[in-house]
Amino acid sequence: MRVKTENDVVDIRAIWWENDSARAIDQRRLPHDFEVVTISTHDQMAEAISNMTVRGAPTIGAAGAYGMALAQKNGVDLDDAASALRATRPTANDLFHAIDAMLSEDDVRRAADSYADMIVAQCERIGKVGADLIDNEMKVLTHCNAGALATVDFGTALAPIRVAHRSGKKPFIFIDETRPRLQGAKLTAWELANEGIEHAIITDNAAGYYLKSEVEIVVVGADRIAANGDFANKIGTYEKAVVAKENGVPFYVAAPISTFDPFMASGDAIVIEQRTPNEVLFINSFRVAADGSRALNPSFDVTPAKFVTGFITEQGVLSADDLKGYIAGQEK
Amino acid sequence: MRVKTENDVVDIRAIWWENDSARAIDQRRLPHDFEVVTISTHDQMAEAISNMTVRGAPTIGAAGAYGMALAQKNGVDLDDAASALRATRPTANDLFHAIDAMLSEDDVRRAADSYADMIVAQCERIGKVGADLIDNEMKVLTHCNAGALATVDFGTALAPIRVAHRSGKKPFIFIDETRPRLQGAKLTAWELANEGIEHAIITDNAAGYYLKSEVEIVVVGADRIAANGDFANKIGTYEKAVVAKENGVPFYVAAPISTFDPFMASGDAIVIEQRTPNEVLFINSFRVAADGSRALNPSFDVTPAKFVTGFITEQGVLSADDLKGYIAGQEK
Repeated sequence: MRVKTENDVVDIRAIWWENDSARAIDQRRLPHDFEVVTISTHDQMAEAISNMTVRGAPTIGAAGAYGMALAQKNGVDLDDAASALRATRPTANDLFHAIDAMLSEDDVRRAADSYADMIVAQCERIGKVGADLIDNEMKVLTHCNAGALATVDFGTALAPIRVAHRSGKKPFIFIDETRPRLQGAKLTAWELANEGIEHAIITDNAAGYYLKSEVEIVVVGADRIAANGDFANKIGTYEKAVVAKENGVPFYVAAPISTFDPFMASGDAIVIEQRTPNEVLFINSFRVAADGSRALNPSFDVTPAKFVTGFITEQGVLSADDLKGYIAGQEK
Repeated sequence: MRVKTENDVVDIRAIWWENDSARAIDQRRLPHDFEVVTISTHDQMAEAISNMTVRGAPTIGAAGAYGMALAQKNGVDLDDAASALRATRPTANDLFHAIDAMLSEDDVRRAADSYADMIVAQCERIGKVGADLIDNEMKVLTHCNAGALATVDFGTALAPIRVAHRSGKKPFIFIDETRPRLQGAKLTAWELANEGIEHAIITDNAAGYYLKSEVEIVVVGADRIAANGDFANKIGTYEKAVVAKENGVPFYVAAPISTFDPFMASGDAIVIEQRTPNEVLFINSFRVAADGSRALNPSFDVTPAKFVTGFITEQGVLSADDLKGYIAGQEK
């Protein structure tokens, strides 16, 4: 991803290997401070995953792989390192997958680099596939951060926008701020500002207003996609999908094929993480609501397949039915 | 409305006349500080409306009326005062209606008191009419603050909930926090906590999740209703209405008949106030987004009549067609 520094524009990943250490953008300090941290041991990497210095399922996967590489470099037992890294965050499937893959490698550092390169190649391909959907000056709505920060580089939902812009098109992006954690306002807006892509942050409430008036296409990411095309994504995605359909606005989900779970029949089986009510009740350490009030904080919602115009994958733009066929073909 | 103070429960309005001045609850300081301000000139009243010390269409109407009373008391030309008060906020019909009504009065202070009393009586009636729709233990969704703070006393959307609760029913209220100004989290939750009504604050993004699973009825207020039943209300209302319909959840708009504008054919003609982007970009004086990012901040949206199950008015629960008939009858 392109990042403007004081005197320069650098092209940088969310996490990479350099001089016998891992380096990563400290995502906790964005958007106000751009700082790269050096991570020299697998324990430091476990801490960086836990405290959300790095975040986003694919980026966390790469972080796990580099954590294993650090353990090998430092002569640490790989099974011990795997345990420590697995214990950081409970939800991200990519993390467990990456750590397990590293256990069978001789040169873990090289394997970790390949793992990160594979993610980036998938995202770049998603960008090229999806860029055809983004016309010049098109008005696009996105939700949360399915960007380069979350996926080592390029992003999923943001990849088609990035590629379209780099090819000379001038899309305009409406960014839902994405309460409660404001990843849209904090991270997606930062990525687009650095890339020089025109955008405006809106409250999540204003998405309907713009879907009825100006938005021509919606592109979001996905955390998990069931075999029938139902998908889980950041809370609020479902509302945007329903309102997009009501207004005839095409609604696309950008995700690598690996996000599909062919063994999950429908979205009904997706377990929704309920996070702390304090993310709703407090903003910047200030309590918003009266002391006598409580909050509920589901972190994801499930959008039924009928609201999805298409899935933008590294294999092309697929319908829910295409997808089933593609997965069945792969399994043969 | 009932307000718990340190040692007592007081019954108080959002705005009233006392000792040759207007007095009002400073709604910007809720829920943490309960403070009553004194307003002695029409210019101070215009400022109090602009800066949202007082807010909510009917309360703004009463504020406009009391602003005219202050002008008369201070010997200010009433037409000049009317211009200054009208220039504060563009969307609320009540404000223009109240100011115009005061122009033909001899004793403006007395007329302003009557105007406020009339609003309260209407809201109490809306509460009685709407309470029949709220079953015991029913799960209700509301948006923004259509409560006593917004309507001098009692509320519109909150009136049926208040009356149902006072009659012994135990409804549970999901409150959209309502970004950007968080009137749900700050004001509606404060009113319900003071009244002892069970509730949970949710992010605006989570409304769809609960409309799909638990919510049995939606009740919101309205700032302006066109002759065909399209209505303007706080930004985000439109999304909730579309998602409620998708899930077969009844969607009611609680408002006095005076909110209807028989001369406005449809919602297309409603002017939407665009407020400062800083309400989105800053939370508690902290800038959320990167410096290179901007925001858009429409304050209201328009919901087409087809999404409304019924209008809860002081004349009963009316459909859009009933309403047209009622208004036609009144005009004869």
